[in-house]
Amino acid sequence: MSSTTGMLFAVSTYGESHGKAVGAIIDGCPANVQLSEADIQPQLSRRRPGQSDMTTPRDEADQVIILSGVENGKTLGTPIGLMVNNRDQRPGDYQEMSDVPRPSHADFTYQMKYGNRAASGGGRSSARETIGRVAAGAIAEKILKERLGTKITAWVSSVGEINARDMTRDGLTRKQIDSNVIRCPDEAVADQMIKLVAATRDRKDSVGGILTCVIENVPIGLGEPIFDKMEAKLAQAMLSIPATKGFEIGSGFSGARMFGSDHNDPFVQKEGRLGTTTNYSGGVQGGITNGEPIVFRVAFKPPATIGIAQETATFAGEATVLEAKGRHDPCVVPRAVPIVETTAALVLMDLFLRQSYRNH
Amino acid sequence: MSSTTGMLFAVSTYGESHGKAVGAIIDGCPANVQLSEADIQPQLSRRRPGQSDMTTPRDEADQVIILSGVENGKTLGTPIGLMVNNRDQRPGDYQEMSDVPRPSHADFTYQMKYGNRAASGGGRSSARETIGRVAAGAIAEKILKERLGTKITAWVSSVGEINARDMTRDGLTRKQIDSNVIRCPDEAVADQMIKLVAATRDRKDSVGGILTCVIENVPIGLGEPIFDKMEAKLAQAMLSIPATKGFEIGSGFSGARMFGSDHNDPFVQKEGRLGTTTNYSGGVQGGITNGEPIVFRVAFKPPATIGIAQETATFAGEATVLEAKGRHDPCVVPRAVPIVETTAALVLMDLFLRQSYRNH
Amino acid sequence: MSSTTGMLFAVSTYGESHGKAVGAIIDGCPANVQLSEADIQPQLSRRRPGQSDMTTPRDEADQVIILSGVENGKTLGTPIGLMVNNRDQRPGDYQEMSDVPRPSHADFTYQMKYGNRAASGGGRSSARETIGRVAAGAIAEKILKERLGTKITAWVSSVGEINARDMTRDGLTRKQIDSNVIRCPDEAVADQMIKLVAATRDRKDSVGGILTCVIENVPIGLGEPIFDKMEAKLAQAMLSIPATKGFEIGSGFSGARMFGSDHNDPFVQKEGRLGTTTNYSGGVQGGITNGEPIVFRVAFKPPATIGIAQETATFAGEATVLEAKGRHDPCVVPRAVPIVETTAALVLMDLFLRQSYRNH
Amino acid sequence: MSSTTGMLFAVSTYGESHGKAVGAIIDGCPANVQLSEADIQPQLSRRRPGQSDMTTPRDEADQVIILSGVENGKTLGTPIGLMVNNRDQRPGDYQEMSDVPRPSHADFTYQMKYGNRAASGGGRSSARETIGRVAAGAIAEKILKERLGTKITAWVSSVGEINARDMTRDGLTRKQIDSNVIRCPDEAVADQMIKLVAATRDRKDSVGGILTCVIENVPIGLGEPIFDKMEAKLAQAMLSIPATKGFEIGSGFSGARMFGSDHNDPFVQKEGRLGTTTNYSGGVQGGITNGEPIVFRVAFKPPATIGIAQETATFAGEATVLEAKGRHDPCVVPRAVPIVETTAALVLMDLFLRQSYRNH
Repeated sequence: MSSTTGMLFAVSTYGESHGKAVGAIIDGCPANVQLSEADIQPQLSRRRPGQSDMTTPRDEADQVIILSGVENGKTLGTPIGLMVNNRDQRPGDYQEMSDVPRPSHADFTYQMKYGNRAASGGGRSSARETIGRVAAGAIAEKILKERLGTKITAWVSSVGEINARDMTRDGLTRKQIDSNVIRCPDEAVADQMIKLVAATRDRKDSVGGILTCVIENVPIGLGEPIFDKMEAKLAQAMLSIPATKGFEIGSGFSGARMFGSDHNDPFVQKEGRLGTTTNYSGGVQGGITNGEPIVFRVAFKPPATIGIAQETATFAGEATVLEAKGRHDPCVVPRAVPIVETTAALVLMDLFLRQSYRNH
Repeated sequence: MSSTTGMLFAVSTYGESHGKAVGAIIDGCPANVQLSEADIQPQLSRRRPGQSDMTTPRDEADQVIILSGVENGKTLGTPIGLMVNNRDQRPGDYQEMSDVPRPSHADFTYQMKYGNRAASGGGRSSARETIGRVAAGAIAEKILKERLGTKITAWVSSVGEINARDMTRDGLTRKQIDSNVIRCPDEAVADQMIKLVAATRDRKDSVGGILTCVIENVPIGLGEPIFDKMEAKLAQAMLSIPATKGFEIGSGFSGARMFGSDHNDPFVQKEGRLGTTTNYSGGVQGGITNGEPIVFRVAFKPPATIGIAQETATFAGEATVLEAKGRHDPCVVPRAVPIVETTAALVLMDLFLRQSYRNH
Repeated sequence: MSSTTGMLFAVSTYGESHGKAVGAIIDGCPANVQLSEADIQPQLSRRRPGQSDMTTPRDEADQVIILSGVENGKTLGTPIGLMVNNRDQRPGDYQEMSDVPRPSHADFTYQMKYGNRAASGGGRSSARETIGRVAAGAIAEKILKERLGTKITAWVSSVGEINARDMTRDGLTRKQIDSNVIRCPDEAVADQMIKLVAATRDRKDSVGGILTCVIENVPIGLGEPIFDKMEAKLAQAMLSIPATKGFEIGSGFSGARMFGSDHNDPFVQKEGRLGTTTNYSGGVQGGITNGEPIVFRVAFKPPATIGIAQETATFAGEATVLEAKGRHDPCVVPRAVPIVETTAALVLMDLFLRQSYRNH
Repeated sequence: MSSTTGMLFAVSTYGESHGKAVGAIIDGCPANVQLSEADIQPQLSRRRPGQSDMTTPRDEADQVIILSGVENGKTLGTPIGLMVNNRDQRPGDYQEMSDVPRPSHADFTYQMKYGNRAASGGGRSSARETIGRVAAGAIAEKILKERLGTKITAWVSSVGEINARDMTRDGLTRKQIDSNVIRCPDEAVADQMIKLVAATRDRKDSVGGILTCVIENVPIGLGEPIFDKMEAKLAQAMLSIPATKGFEIGSGFSGARMFGSDHNDPFVQKEGRLGTTTNYSGGVQGGITNGEPIVFRVAFKPPATIGIAQETATFAGEATVLEAKGRHDPCVVPRAVPIVETTAALVLMDLFLRQSYRNH
């Protein structure tokens, strides 16, 4: 069950980087939703490598196929099978690594856990695993948008030491975010970020970054205490994305520096509902949404696969030097934007359905 | 199922702050474990309020009773029922708040979600909810220690703007940590923290803080990709604790500032296993433990209930001023130490059992 | 999780026959339901032994206590803790059995599975385990009745070779069923059944029987294909009751003898809905309720504990003769009536909530 | 999650009768199992229609494709994606039915539940749904056989009123069972059954039947009380198969007629373990396997789709006459043999893994 997320909108993903296909099954998608591959493809294409020289220039078409659960353009309420064929299988580039677990990659831990691992690419730990969830999450996004007007927007807010200004209240659009290849809407720093990534790539290194995500038009009441609080499920989902190291909601770690008299969000009457004047809570109180935008940040470490020679050890424990061949992402955060958005959509959709029965 | 955590070591908690009892059921505890209430009580007593003037001076005895699953001092393998009676019911102190949702507390969201809420105390959103998990987690800790030598140690590493030095490699003991009331083992700053909390309490305010947790002697191979990766389950569990706003593992958010050539943890032969020279990964790679210590941090916001007058609104949307009566924790982080430790134990124990069947 | 049933109305039971208490937690009970112990007690009292000389004359008061989840007489939507203290602990009666696994009882299999077992009584395999589910199911029954008018009625339709006539369309009431101690509403055979049980008890033997259960006023659309079809979940739930050996719905095993032209239930317009003229389907088609009454039967074997001397073997494999001491139920089916009803209520309630979100 | 079965060997199925594909994902299959499509195909071919004139003569090739989870002929421990393309799409044959729900079919209930349904074939309620579980179950069978020597054998023991003799102790092989088209190993009645089905088909009717299944070489200790007892999970799984109406284990309904002194299975020393002289328990005691063969029976109703004219009503409630076109199975039980076997394998495999961690 460890590749399944969600209870009522349950998504089970499958697929390695170099097998026949990757994909997902959605069990619990509401019936009578207008749906075709065209609804899913845009987010898949946004996560595709090779969109710019910021990211791996492999050409993976990543066309999704709906195998089941949809007839005459409408969902049946039955499981939706989603599949994307793997085309680009170049095990040769990776083979040299086979005796040497790549530092900070999953080669070592997969081998120790399963007594086996994919011989080529990252297998299941590859970023290619995210295709299944992105496809499923694109469907969740569509339903949330149609039914609730929910808008989920992530962007790159830091690359290395370069930080964008706080834009969480700017009502950003995907168009704005996609206007540059680094997907940072703060034009003042986007170019610096792009140059940093280019320089990093040129010296065969990699660099980390932070994504900020804002979810607007969230119904009040979503989140299931205790263990399925909104922030708990978001944290789990985000930390399941490859290369993530941290999650914070609202004030996050900086909130730990504050006094209650500054941090508390006072209530005030807003149009049609009680709202808050500030949003240090990040849209959740007691694990339940309060109607304010959900705001969270996700930290991504620098990709583990780098071309720079690294002193390390073989599986057998012998000292060696590893120099990764092939082309690798110097920075994953631009491609992570649709992954974070759709992963958030999966969490929201499930918690939305789980609250729905209460309103019956 | 939202009050249940774990699949094979499944813990279901129950109880409000002012009902008859709080507690938990553990379904899946291994049989033949020596167990009595005395194994559980120490961590419950550490989380108890009133241990110092740092925390609420209510006297809650919090004696745990084992209702089932143990006979002749050994676990039967059947569900273990755990109960702690509620003694201190003083709804009077809280009643004034009933028309006014406390800012940044869960009054508003619980009312909106359930159409009802506990009239007194925080109900299910109260810190008292954590008793069930602490009791269950204490059992998990005991088993992990006996079978694997696992040692879980959390401490206060920040209060407000005051930070302890990095002590993640110091092999700290609980005795060291409990040697001062703020539970910060860095003597150089502990007093400052204590004074800050005292000053905060005196002006009826509250302050946040950060906990650091280190888990030593973790078997290689724990964590279930994709959605139940070790860091994903830890993040979910930590963000389910009241007042938490962030989670990071290993390098965390600072890792997002780094280059791969610095961040990668090179492999090296250690006694009996392959290890790493650095531990920016925080003990996990690809969501699976690599044998190095798990290191993570949890951010706690300042408690929402403060005595300072706050301008806010009633449920009906009318402007009002709220001034909380009664005694409230000015800072929760010292009491959060055993909560974080036992919550981590629950995650580890479940992932340990989930890996165990593979070794069959 | 094996002591948990239900996804949205999740019930986790705990407790052995001779520990401190037995009970259950309900996670997911709707908020704002009027609820007190008085709503639960009647079904608990109906399952209590000692109601007549048909059943074990032990005096177990079995008073339920609500530990949490209810305040001011209304459910909060949070977990409801239910507890019944164990009073009657007479391990002496059972001790002689300890070296000899009772034939067809669970002594042997529990010992082999867990490497341990309750030294006295049946431990977790005892009928006393059913208290938790009966208490939780009584709450489910109440909600189903109030919201949907659902009426769940079970009765004894066979004891040994004595069969009652088909009364599935008679609209039986619990009062009618409880009018005799064997709980068989067919007066023509009830006395014979009572005499058979008395004669069986007198010669220290036991006898099996069959329960029939009818559920009226079931909404159309309940049941979640594929694995959580209504009949699949009912079958699982019924076969989880101690001493059960079979389950059939509608035509059941006799339907396997029939031709489709006789077995098909033709549709016909009924008041306000499409119904069927016959009900060989037993209220379900394709695993989903069709609005007709759900009709099912459950087979109970004769109780394993008998006073007659039995040639068997010790755990060590040595031949021996076992003669059970103490008083034992010669026939469990009268007491099984409320167990079957409340267990059915748990299944229905969960599938009702799982369908509810679709109607949003 | 309703299309997912199993906790550690979790199988999620997808697919309608006339979409692009049907299949399953297995999450939790042990790593390092030798596996190829050739291991799966035999059971898929046995369930294929058109094997004789006993069953629908459509030609569906049903070739399984492994999409993921296997590399170099070995399982990786990651999710195994399984797919079978749908080839035979003849919606024309079914279209006339669209205004008229077929009696005792799932047309009406699916429409009411989902507000939508597959326009052609039975959609998700079609027997074609079983392909996913048969494919997954074939893998479970292989592992159980290799690791434990477990042998699962089902056969047709009744068709209509014709009953085979009890062959549960005959150590039957699949070769014997497949030696005739009705898959009844009792040669004395197989011909009568075949003639009955032929006569039934000729008059455009259908007929029900019963399958018996024996599982040999089952380890002691499988089954998870309370709700996941072996017989409870088998009952759920069997009642999830289309057209089933009943399940019984061991003595089943006839056990309800017996006295305890006859029904109890006395223990006796067997080679290397404690066994029982009789097996009225059907291999389980207290919900846990005792090492004796598991014996159960499943009742199948006559198929709902028949060519005989039926008086029924349209969805709108108007009286009409329905006469199904196309070719339909007059009797499903021969094809159900591999479905029952593989479905049983799924239950066993999951409960085997769930017990495995205890032996750690």
